[in-house]
Amino acid sequence: MDKNIELSELRKLLRKNEFTGPTAGFAHGHTQANLVILPKDLAYDFLLFCHRNPKPCPLIEVTDVGSPVPRLTAPNSDLRYEVPKYFIYKKGELVREVNDIETYWRNDLVSFLIGCSFTFEFPLVENGLEIRHIAENRNVPMYITNIPCEPAGVFHGNLVVSMRPFSATDAIRAVQITSRFPSVHGAPIHIGNPEQIGIQNISKPDFGDPVTIKDGEVPVFWACGVTPQSVAMSSKPELMITHAPGHMFITDTKDSSYSIL
Amino acid sequence: MDKNIELSELRKLLRKNEFTGPTAGFAHGHTQANLVILPKDLAYDFLLFCHRNPKPCPLIEVTDVGSPVPRLTAPNSDLRYEVPKYFIYKKGELVREVNDIETYWRNDLVSFLIGCSFTFEFPLVENGLEIRHIAENRNVPMYITNIPCEPAGVFHGNLVVSMRPFSATDAIRAVQITSRFPSVHGAPIHIGNPEQIGIQNISKPDFGDPVTIKDGEVPVFWACGVTPQSVAMSSKPELMITHAPGHMFITDTKDSSYSIL
Repeated sequence: MDKNIELSELRKLLRKNEFTGPTAGFAHGHTQANLVILPKDLAYDFLLFCHRNPKPCPLIEVTDVGSPVPRLTAPNSDLRYEVPKYFIYKKGELVREVNDIETYWRNDLVSFLIGCSFTFEFPLVENGLEIRHIAENRNVPMYITNIPCEPAGVFHGNLVVSMRPFSATDAIRAVQITSRFPSVHGAPIHIGNPEQIGIQNISKPDFGDPVTIKDGEVPVFWACGVTPQSVAMSSKPELMITHAPGHMFITDTKDSSYSIL
Repeated sequence: MDKNIELSELRKLLRKNEFTGPTAGFAHGHTQANLVILPKDLAYDFLLFCHRNPKPCPLIEVTDVGSPVPRLTAPNSDLRYEVPKYFIYKKGELVREVNDIETYWRNDLVSFLIGCSFTFEFPLVENGLEIRHIAENRNVPMYITNIPCEPAGVFHGNLVVSMRPFSATDAIRAVQITSRFPSVHGAPIHIGNPEQIGIQNISKPDFGDPVTIKDGEVPVFWACGVTPQSVAMSSKPELMITHAPGHMFITDTKDSSYSIL
């Protein structure tokens, strides 16, 4: 499909389940978001967890209880239909993959839209940095670290990070660029030795695909939006709905609005 | 009292109710915070309100339910004793001013520590900018604007702003400096014409004191931490406890840790 399709047209296709693929590269400039939907009785703990762990869990919007409309970032949209693919978890088990969640919707559900690394990858590319997993046409490698998140209520777990290798010079530039987006993961959490953050084998990511680290390059690690999903799942909530990896919700908001400088 | 007293010593005096005054200038470099304490049944709405309105409500920490210990920013401290003066509100009415809240403490209370403009005023001063209300030894002027906050559950109301006048050159520098502190009010929300944000008479602030605006100066407006208190109060909660204005809670955290650059 032509990636230059207008967002409004793309949403029409999403509503008819005629677009069910990954969203990377679509609706250029519009902020894409991770989705976590939980019952209200878990929403306070999850909101507090996100507040206490803003780097892995940069909240873009939390909907009103029972409303599928993200009225601040996509007021004409409906979260029940406009994600290409959803995962349905019951008690921590993936039970179904679906293209809309109309039959699962309930009046006690709260939707959390969480920032995604697409927002800071584009300015890295614009600044001439090569994003290895894009160059190698793979999914970004992700690792579970030994760094505990700050717990909140029933939610606790370790930080998940994504990794992008850069030359030392480019790593410094990447720190500068991503620091401008504190509300979308922000600056890296580690540069250099993976073992220092509990990663034993950099060529075996816990999620995603391995990528080449060239001679003279250092791995640079950012807090990853997979963290809140993995933490939520480990608490085995009665019902949790998420987007399928790479199949994000696209907001009306422009990425540039999350830059503080 | 000598403002160079160590924070640990100051806390000892606070615990004995031997220090009950304003905290401005004490514990240099340590982050001072506004305090709002609410029962758990209002905590989700209030947390969501703060998330949706990060400029007026920059959350520094939210304590665990029933715990008076801010374990992330002052783990050896106790919020029941270490604020110089507290206000007790019942159903939106100020009923008492006290120096500790031992007798009011309950196991369902949640404490919200909210960033305060002291954190960005010091770097303004360090950069050679004159803060008028400090120069004139007054309280900062604050105004209720016509800008509605994003509502959340029972909480809604208009944005309150603080005002500092600057020359055009200094106003530009002030934007740069305060942009470095996005989690403590951040950049101004308005520069110039007060009427555009619903302020009819700049010499009659709604809270605090008027200050001189010299010829050629422009008023610069920042979102103000009085907003969450005023919004919480308007919902008339059964019990709300706050710090008395200017009598802040002092965390272990350094102001510089809130700078993203």
